[in-house]
Amino acid sequence: MFKEQLQKIVDKTEGGLAVIVMDMNGIALDTYAKDGAPFDINTVSIELSTVLGAAKRASEMLEAGKTSEIAVSTEKLTTIVRTLNETYFLAFAMKPDGNVGKGRYLMRMAAPEMAKEL
Amino acid sequence: MFKEQLQKIVDKTEGGLAVIVMDMNGIALDTYAKDGAPFDINTVSIELSTVLGAAKRASEMLEAGKTSEIAVSTEKLTTIVRTLNETYFLAFAMKPDGNVGKGRYLMRMAAPEMAKEL
Repeated sequence: MFKEQLQKIVDKTEGGLAVIVMDMNGIALDTYAKDGAPFDINTVSIELSTVLGAAKRASEMLEAGKTSEIAVSTEKLTTIVRTLNETYFLAFAMKPDGNVGKGRYLMRMAAPEMAKEL
Repeated sequence: MFKEQLQKIVDKTEGGLAVIVMDMNGIALDTYAKDGAPFDINTVSIELSTVLGAAKRASEMLEAGKTSEIAVSTEKLTTIVRTLNETYFLAFAMKPDGNVGKGRYLMRMAAPEMAKEL
């Protein structure tokens, strides 16, 4: 469904591993992963949907507006999560030394077009 | 205690508003805020400590190693949280159009020195 956009995000970001479109209940809509990605993007995204939920609750408490993006960096993985609309989000996993700025940019550019089709 | 390091992070980042050193229980150790910052960095950080907790649990589940950093972007505020050690973290709030890359860089540079004193 979104294969072309997803592939572009992963392949154009140095250190990019895998990307997924998922709903807030953890159901994957479409995904693209490089061969040999060391993590299953499905599992990563399901875990991160709880982090996104926590961020949304924090934003509501702070009256800081809607949460557009979260990024989580660990020793082995950096993941960026961008909300597409109320139901769906885009999650992108990369190596810890991957180009986070480039990844954020490519996701930001792709999001409005993807959101239109959801 | 860390006034000089904190001031440097805020003042050298375009759009920087306020920064705080806080423990995981929400007790602030030191803080620096620009005049007219539209949010109380104490309140923001207490809320974000729950997001950091969720990220840490997700990283453990995924065996992805220690969580070093999370960033949350909302309509009105972008906040970067960097862990300093098991007990303390550094949280930096900036305008949504602030220079996230510069902020992350300055926090990463300051963290090891600050961690030594904790």
